Amino acid sequence: MKQYLTENVLPFWLNNAIDEEYGGIFTCLDEAGNIYGEEKSVWFQGRALYIFSNAYNSGFKNKCYLDAAKKIYDFLPLCGDENGRMYFTVTRDGKEIQKRRYYFSETFAAIGCCEYYLASGDENAKVLSEKYFDIAYSIYCNPNLTTPKFNPETSPYKALSPSMIMLSTAQVLRQINKEKYDKIASEMVVKILKHFTEYGLLENIGQNDEFIDTPTGRTLNPGHSLEAAWFLMAEGQYKNDTDLMKKAKDIIDISMQHGYRNGGIIAFCDCLGKPAGALEWDMQLWWPQCEALIANRLCYEIFQEEKYLKWYEDLKEYTFSHFEDTEYGEWYGYLHYDGTVANTLKGNIFKGPFHLPRMLLLLDKIENGKSIL
Amino acid sequence: MKQYLTENVLPFWLNNAIDEEYGGIFTCLDEAGNIYGEEKSVWFQGRALYIFSNAYNSGFKNKCYLDAAKKIYDFLPLCGDENGRMYFTVTRDGKEIQKRRYYFSETFAAIGCCEYYLASGDENAKVLSEKYFDIAYSIYCNPNLTTPKFNPETSPYKALSPSMIMLSTAQVLRQINKEKYDKIASEMVVKILKHFTEYGLLENIGQNDEFIDTPTGRTLNPGHSLEAAWFLMAEGQYKNDTDLMKKAKDIIDISMQHGYRNGGIIAFCDCLGKPAGALEWDMQLWWPQCEALIANRLCYEIFQEEKYLKWYEDLKEYTFSHFEDTEYGEWYGYLHYDGTVANTLKGNIFKGPFHLPRMLLLLDKIENGKSIL
Repeated sequence: MKQYLTENVLPFWLNNAIDEEYGGIFTCLDEAGNIYGEEKSVWFQGRALYIFSNAYNSGFKNKCYLDAAKKIYDFLPLCGDENGRMYFTVTRDGKEIQKRRYYFSETFAAIGCCEYYLASGDENAKVLSEKYFDIAYSIYCNPNLTTPKFNPETSPYKALSPSMIMLSTAQVLRQINKEKYDKIASEMVVKILKHFTEYGLLENIGQNDEFIDTPTGRTLNPGHSLEAAWFLMAEGQYKNDTDLMKKAKDIIDISMQHGYRNGGIIAFCDCLGKPAGALEWDMQLWWPQCEALIANRLCYEIFQEEKYLKWYEDLKEYTFSHFEDTEYGEWYGYLHYDGTVANTLKGNIFKGPFHLPRMLLLLDKIENGKSIL
Repeated sequence: MKQYLTENVLPFWLNNAIDEEYGGIFTCLDEAGNIYGEEKSVWFQGRALYIFSNAYNSGFKNKCYLDAAKKIYDFLPLCGDENGRMYFTVTRDGKEIQKRRYYFSETFAAIGCCEYYLASGDENAKVLSEKYFDIAYSIYCNPNLTTPKFNPETSPYKALSPSMIMLSTAQVLRQINKEKYDKIASEMVVKILKHFTEYGLLENIGQNDEFIDTPTGRTLNPGHSLEAAWFLMAEGQYKNDTDLMKKAKDIIDISMQHGYRNGGIIAFCDCLGKPAGALEWDMQLWWPQCEALIANRLCYEIFQEEKYLKWYEDLKEYTFSHFEDTEYGEWYGYLHYDGTVANTLKGNIFKGPFHLPRMLLLLDKIENGKSIL
């Protein structure tokens, strides 16, 4: 895992994606690493900053990781407005293209700055990390600060992803403020578990935490569920909470049951088997495989049940033989339902150096008996 | 074509989709015609109103078409706000779920009301038709009336779809006001042709009508291009404009070259062969097949070149053997790249009684030597 990370995945991005002229990182890279679009994803400024800094902090003290991180860190201030709200995409030179209501840009910037502070010692990065978190958390607590996409009167759903991203972000930021983020993490665990029903870990539940029998209410995203499961399991491990770890194991079981198909994890399904909403529902995207690998490997480490080792080994064999590009490095992002490559791109606005290197960093820790939080 | 329309496609929707209690039409129907979601698409209130009224007006004077049309027509006023702006989706009883900046709901309501006026003689429907058109056209002419999704300074694209929908809507509404809509149709032909370049009929061009070498600028939607081609060809036929018909033929040629793959028409591609942006890029959606069938059949009728008859016959054979559900009727909407069924649904917010029945109505006209405008 360590070798694949440091000799294949990270070099692919370091060699092709860092913008030496304007700073920041490109992610629209084709199979060979050529840039096919200069639009920059703000999510990936924060995510790549996190990955390069985290790799540096994880003992791979390669100076070029820190250099790349600095080039991205210096570009971050261009990615938001005067109120600290960040954009979704910017031009090569950091001018706004699209701003969205969601605050994922801010949460990824928060983890990026936090890890960069730990790598560089730059106190300003610590301040920025908390600033970005606080903006995101204030919107999390007061959704009225943004215009809702759907009428809340007729579409009264609570979504899973805001609580998930807050838990994950708090799990990183507790490195700089244990008390504050331990409390927020505990709050988020409770919120996430409200989504866990007999139908699976639902993407959307009602205002009273009830199952709503509509296409939106029935939606499952198995990769998302498996990601949440390892967030929860790691939190249980951190707090020595056996009950929480067991619940996370149950989420893995039901998510594998819904999501495992043709050797990999599908993108979406309807929990009652009705038609899925997304066209790509049975495609195999790279990131759900990464989350499934982490969840099953961590679960095996903790519970020592062979089932999880078997799933892990099977998924590892399948993903490396189907997603890996042995010629140019890194993974393809999108396979058809039958495991053939659907798109040869290595990156776009949603795929860049995050899920795969994060998985490699975590699996290296788990396999070496280290805690992942 | 006529038999398939009247004995298969229209009955599928008439028997399963009309809401006898609240009025309007459902479109979230599974394979067997069961409703799996009650959210109503406002696009499809207008589109279904158009189809049932048009079928009635096209000589299939089945009273149940007019009855269904009336149930949908009566539901329309619930689908918009006090300013006449329509929603994108509503609850079963017509309360707003989502409102979008786009005005396609209004243009589909305009063609629905126009055709319903011609079917029923209800003068109020004629007034409504023009009202909906005027709202849409005022936004078309003044995009500043809505909040742009992308920063116009850094994302200065002109999109193809607004001019296409305006041409198509004007082609229907000229039945109630020839002079007004002939003029608008001519204006739109000029606008659409600006998108026609050596790379194909581009979805997005620059403010000076130039090709922009970015993922957005390079995007082709072959089904969209083929649809535009038959809009233009029909307009050329209507105005006896040979040059326009020839240009439409050239658009068909380049669109088939980009879009025809594995027996059907794909959803998207990059005009320079770089990675396509949409995950579903090589899926075969039902509607591009319908547009390709109309375009090639009309082109053959006008130019009598065997190539178009061959494409038409090949596509007809392929689509009816792959999209048709011989058990419950209607077509599946989404095939994988290899022609297998990706989703068994018959309808959703974007698929309902429109492209397939419109194709059947038009092919019946073309095969009987009638003008389609």
